[in-house]
Parts: sequence; C-alpha cells; structure tokens
Amino acid sequence: MDTIKVEIITIGDEILIGQIVDTNSAWMATQLNQYGFEIHKITSVHDNAQQIKEAITYAFTQAQIVLLTGGIGPTKDDITKHTLCELFNTRLIHSQEVYDNIIQLFKHRPNVMNPLTATQAMVPENCTVIQNEVGTAPITWFEQQGKILVSMPGVPYEMMHNMTTQIIPRLAKHFNTPNILHQTIITYGIPESQLAITLTDWENNLPQHIQLAYLPNNGLVKLRLSGISDDQEELKKEIQQLFNQLPPLLGDAIIAHEDITPQAYIGQLLKEKQQTISTAESCTGGNIAHLITSIPGSSEYYKGSITAYANEIKINILGVSEEKLIQHGAVSREVVEQMATGVRQKMNTHYAIATSGIAGPDGGTPDKPVGTTWIAVATPDRVISKKFQFGKLREQNINRATQAALTLLIQLIKHDNFKTN
Amino acid sequence: MDTIKVEIITIGDEILIGQIVDTNSAWMATQLNQYGFEIHKITSVHDNAQQIKEAITYAFTQAQIVLLTGGIGPTKDDITKHTLCELFNTRLIHSQEVYDNIIQLFKHRPNVMNPLTATQAMVPENCTVIQNEVGTAPITWFEQQGKILVSMPGVPYEMMHNMTTQIIPRLAKHFNTPNILHQTIITYGIPESQLAITLTDWENNLPQHIQLAYLPNNGLVKLRLSGISDDQEELKKEIQQLFNQLPPLLGDAIIAHEDITPQAYIGQLLKEKQQTISTAESCTGGNIAHLITSIPGSSEYYKGSITAYANEIKINILGVSEEKLIQHGAVSREVVEQMATGVRQKMNTHYAIATSGIAGPDGGTPDKPVGTTWIAVATPDRVISKKFQFGKLREQNINRATQAALTLLIQLIKHDNFKTN
Repeated sequence: MDTIKVEIITIGDEILIGQIVDTNSAWMATQLNQYGFEIHKITSVHDNAQQIKEAITYAFTQAQIVLLTGGIGPTKDDITKHTLCELFNTRLIHSQEVYDNIIQLFKHRPNVMNPLTATQAMVPENCTVIQNEVGTAPITWFEQQGKILVSMPGVPYEMMHNMTTQIIPRLAKHFNTPNILHQTIITYGIPESQLAITLTDWENNLPQHIQLAYLPNNGLVKLRLSGISDDQEELKKEIQQLFNQLPPLLGDAIIAHEDITPQAYIGQLLKEKQQTISTAESCTGGNIAHLITSIPGSSEYYKGSITAYANEIKINILGVSEEKLIQHGAVSREVVEQMATGVRQKMNTHYAIATSGIAGPDGGTPDKPVGTTWIAVATPDRVISKKFQFGKLREQNINRATQAALTLLIQLIKHDNFKTN
Repeated sequence: MDTIKVEIITIGDEILIGQIVDTNSAWMATQLNQYGFEIHKITSVHDNAQQIKEAITYAFTQAQIVLLTGGIGPTKDDITKHTLCELFNTRLIHSQEVYDNIIQLFKHRPNVMNPLTATQAMVPENCTVIQNEVGTAPITWFEQQGKILVSMPGVPYEMMHNMTTQIIPRLAKHFNTPNILHQTIITYGIPESQLAITLTDWENNLPQHIQLAYLPNNGLVKLRLSGISDDQEELKKEIQQLFNQLPPLLGDAIIAHEDITPQAYIGQLLKEKQQTISTAESCTGGNIAHLITSIPGSSEYYKGSITAYANEIKINILGVSEEKLIQHGAVSREVVEQMATGVRQKMNTHYAIATSGIAGPDGGTPDKPVGTTWIAVATPDRVISKKFQFGKLREQNINRATQAALTLLIQLIKHDNFKTN
C-alpha cells in the first residue's frame, strides 16, 4: 500500500532570517508518520504572495497534502489568507462562528479585543473553516481534485493543539490511511551503535512486514517496531512477542515498555504506589522540577525542589556539611548524596533526586572537566549515586543530566520494594 | 542594490521523519544575513538522488547560491557526493590532500580509522575542494555560469566552523554583497494586534527601504526593522531614530532594545549592577530557574530556587503563614508576596521572584479558573505583585507565567534605584 505524501510549507520572514528555528516541522513529521503519512519535503518561504503561491503549486506536483503554518496573524505582514484567496480564486467573507470564538477567547479581557482582532473572522469563502480552540486565527481547509491544503497558525502550541485534536484525525479519515501500528520500548545506558550490535540477530530475524527504528535522544534510545496490517490485533500480538525477546538481551537497560516520557512514566509509577518525590538540583538548575511538573496531576506525588545553585544554599537549606563541600568539592559523591538525603528529609518524601555537575562552559578543571556530573537518588533506607561524564555543551549537559537522573529514579522505583510506612 | 539570493537545502531522512530539528538553517541564515545575503528559501529533502537533483535545479531558477548540508558521511545512505557528480557531469577521484587531512584527524585514535573513512577522500573532479578542518568529510564548491553550489557536512559543529572560517568569507569576496541591517526591540504586555493599532501612524511613515515585522511569542512581541544600504552607519542611525520615536508610544512595554531572551537580559542587568536573585516557584514548577540557569555564567547572580509545589513546603521552607494560606488560598496576593519575601530572606539575595497559579487542567474554581496566576517580585525595600489571567492549557500557562515573571523582574530592575549596600 502506498503512503500518502505530505509537504510542509512554513511561512515567515523570521524563519529565513534565522530569528526562529523551525521546530514545528519536526513535530508535525513525527505525528504524521504515526498515521502513515510520509513527509516528502519541508520548505520555508517568506511572507511573500508570489513565493507562497509558487511553493504551493510546486508542492502539489508531488504531494497529496500540503500543510501551511504561519503568516495568518492579524498584522499587515501576514498575507497567507489573501494569497490563498488568489490561488483558489475566492474572496474573504465574515464568519460569525469564528467571530463568536474570538469573543469567547477574549471573555476575560474584553479590553484587549480590537478591530484588528476582528479581522481574524474574515475567512476564504470556498473552504472549510476549522475553529482554532486556543487562538484567534482560524484554520482553513481546502479540497481540490482530491488534494488537500490546510493553513494553520505557526505559534507552536496552537499548531500542536489543533494538529492533534482536529487536523490529523480529519486527514486520517479522509485518506483512509493504512493501519500502521507503532510500538516502542525505551532503553537507557547503551549507545545506539552498541545496541545495534547486541540486537543484530534479533533484527535479522524480524519478519519483512515489521520495521525497526532506533531513535536516540539525550542518552535514551527508543526502539520502535512498525508494521502495516489490516488485522491490528494479530499485528499487536506479533510485535509484543518480538519485544518479549528483548529483556534477556538488554536487561535493566529497558526502562519503559511504551512510548512515554520518563517524567510521565515516573508519574504513573508513583501514583500507583502512592509515593512522593522531591528534588535538589544544582547543575540541572530546575529542569528536573520543570519536567516533572509539566505532567498534569503531578501535585499528587511531587512536593517540590530546592535548586541549590550557590554553595551557601547547599549548606544552609539542604544541610550539606561545609567540611565535605570543602574537602570533596560540590561535584562529588559525598555532596550529591547529602543533597538527596537533605531534601528528602526536609520535604518528607519517599524518594529524592539530586544532581551536581559542571554544565560549562566555565568551571572545569583537569580532574573534573566540564560535563562531570554526580547524580543521587535517596529512598527511606538507602541512597545510591552515580558519576557521569557528559560533553562540552552546556545545554546538552543539562538535558543529559536531567534524563540520567529521571532514568536512575525509574530503575530504583521499579526495583525497590520498601514498605510505604 | 539587489541582494544576493541564497537557498539552503538540508539533506537527510532524519529531518523528514522528525527525528532531528533542523537548527542549521537558522544559524546559517543569521550569519549570512550579516554579510548581506538574503535567504530566499529553505528546503529539506530525503537522501534521494532524484529529489536532491530536482531541489538543486529548482533552487537555481531563483538563487545565485545554493548551500547543501548533510548526506556526505561515509555510510550507504549518504549519496549527496554521487548525486553532485551526476548533476555536474563529473566523476569521483582520489584527493591525496583530503586523505592526509583524515589521517591527521585520526592521529590520536588510529584504531577508529577504517576503509569507510578512507572513501571520504574521493571527491568530484571538477570542483574546488575545501578542507574540512574539524571532520573527515570535505567541502565541495562548484561554480557554473556565475552561480555557486557548496556542499558541506550537516553535523552542526562542523558546519558552523567551516561556514565561519571558510565558506562565508569566500562567498562575501566572490559576490561583493550589499549590507543588510536588522534591529529589534522587545515589548511585553501589549498584544500584537493592539501594538499594530498603536503604531499605525509610525508604521505608515516608515521609509520604503525599511521594513517592519511583528514577532509574538508567549506574551512578548518583538518589533524588527530591516533595511538595506551601502552606508551602514547612516542606516543604523536612521533605524535608531525610528526606534527612538517608540518610547512615548509604548512606554514601559519596551523591555529591551536588542534581540535577546529575557533570561539573558536579566543576566546582563544583574551582572552590571552586581546584584543577585532567587526564585520561589509554584505553578511554574522550576521553569524560571531552568531558564535563568540556561545562561552561561548565571551562577554569578543566581543563588537558587525553592519549588514549593505542596502547601506544606510553602509553609515549612518558605515561611508562608498557614493562616493566610487557609484564608486566601495558595493562589493569592498574600501568599505569593510571602513566597517572594521568604525566599529572598532565606537565600539572601537582592531580588526574588515568586509565582503561584492554577496551571490546569484541574484545580480551577468559579472564583479562580484555570490560568489564574499571581506573580510577585521582592526587593530589599518592597514587594510588588500582579494578577494574570492566562488560558486553559497547562503548558501555555506555565510558559506565559514564566515570561510574565521574567518581564516583571526586568521592569523592576530597570526602574529600581535602591542602593546595593
């Protein structure tokens, strides 16, 4: 069965002068892939009518679906809507429904509403208008000769929300895409190339209709099996059986049997066990707390965090011993373990995570170069800690330390059977 | 004077399945812009010979320069080099110079060298080969009828190094480019459409050679003026004069006069004043700490944070009065102000920020619906607080509260003249 080809066109001068990085396309590609759509090409063009028209026309020589993001704000430089009218030979008309939606969105701040906002309710006449549930610019959906063009906002959260709840479900229904099943397991601690060697035989024995993909990210490697079949139940069983062969090969490296973020998985585990957690962060600077609290309902199991960036905070608030700090330095087993036990006691939680490392670019020494990181997890009856050597880039070091800390916690929760009282 | 048009083509299946975000293009665009090159279009295509050839041919109908990144590694799926030979009607030959460069690069780890690495020394015959100083894949430079094609590695670090030291200087010399100037100011608190109305007269009076763009993101709106002129000094003055007309129109809404993130700007301001800051976060859950510490050198002015997710942490660690918590609720002026003054005292800093809100999806009440957020900033002699009503989406609420808090702090730092001791 052929895949349906999609082209993404992102519109905006800000992309072409490098003021923003186009993160939308990668997100859209990942989501569309899961529904059996193939991204054929991604193009970024200026807020320029001629260029937008050319890009759309050229895209349709190859693709059945063209998705546009951006250029639909209320200001003068946003011209996508007018350009689509020219291209599809139609005109803008007032949509009462869209207008009502805008009024609804501005309910709590009516003074912000103005004539320009109201122009958002002008939509092309011969298209399907899809309400934007989280913003004022509506989504427009054009069909012509079996091909589809959808124009949507470029603001990432508006795009994501509407793609998930409205656009992808409609596309999947319209094209009756093949039944693709993706199942993912998440591993941690084995580099991609080593994983590939360990799994050589297993991979060679995969049936032809099931594909394997390695998706590495900050130390985690997701293994995804994808298959196409009309018999979803049968395919699901088959993939499950293949994954069941992995634990003897990979052991503890498997941290989750579904495609879930570590922070969401931690939420599931802690809710199930009715346990709580706190964090003490130095080099990760609040990123672990941020990820844990990004999960809805996290207040059920997450009590809080102390980001102890300065040593005096480690001593005065977390209760790290000044002597140990001087003797071993802030980036050491001794200090990170005291941080973990300190915050666990202070916040009265079952578990606690602590991080201390040199994120860079400065602060490295020959003994402890940039990237050196200690991570500890404390439980009611013990504290374990581990040293990592990450790279030279600050952002990457913060992200890797965060993933390592969350993973260490998952491994401990899964193997810990201490009583909860 | 016309600008020189550049098209960027990024090659790699990993981009089109969303496995990586194309960050190269934005970086390249920023750099090239400064030398007067205009990025006309960015296209991402698969590792597919036919698609690469079509993309290059189509790009040259509009652009004088085509820059390719990626697809030049040693593995089977990297086919750019072979494709360029077909397109430019040439063949691969061995380059002793490139081979010597590879040997040099592997000097310290000769066991990593393998037959595949050596194939990197095979280069197209009728092109200029530019040595890659930081990797094994050479850069190839083709000239035809006054147009230029450059193929370079997609690994960000290798691309950046070679663009800076070799490719851009050669392009600038070859094309004798005009000068483009971009200047940005950042505003907060006025929605894009309201800004556009306020600035109607100013915008209509802009000279033809200067363009305006609005770039909104989480409550911030950047205003960018761009112009082309051979006289950079004159243009700079002209744009500066235009921006100088804005403070009477926008007042406090202008938070920065350059293109900078709020967290980086806070860093600049605090370093300049040699002042320090701490944070107490409830609804933002560590995101403010995370952004502040994402800035290299932030340990100079950032001491730490208490993420007080549970009320008991607000009481026990931040010193919020239990009575006030019960009387007014956690999301209230009284509590958020106590959080700010509490963490400021505890961490002994000049400033402190605190947030308390209902991020959602649960926890809203008729009185305090999801999105209700209180933010406070404490200084040595006062504490100010402000209520915000954001939207329904958790992630959006966290991001907006974070931006609002950082912005409130900037406004206070800029208008605060208290002595530092």
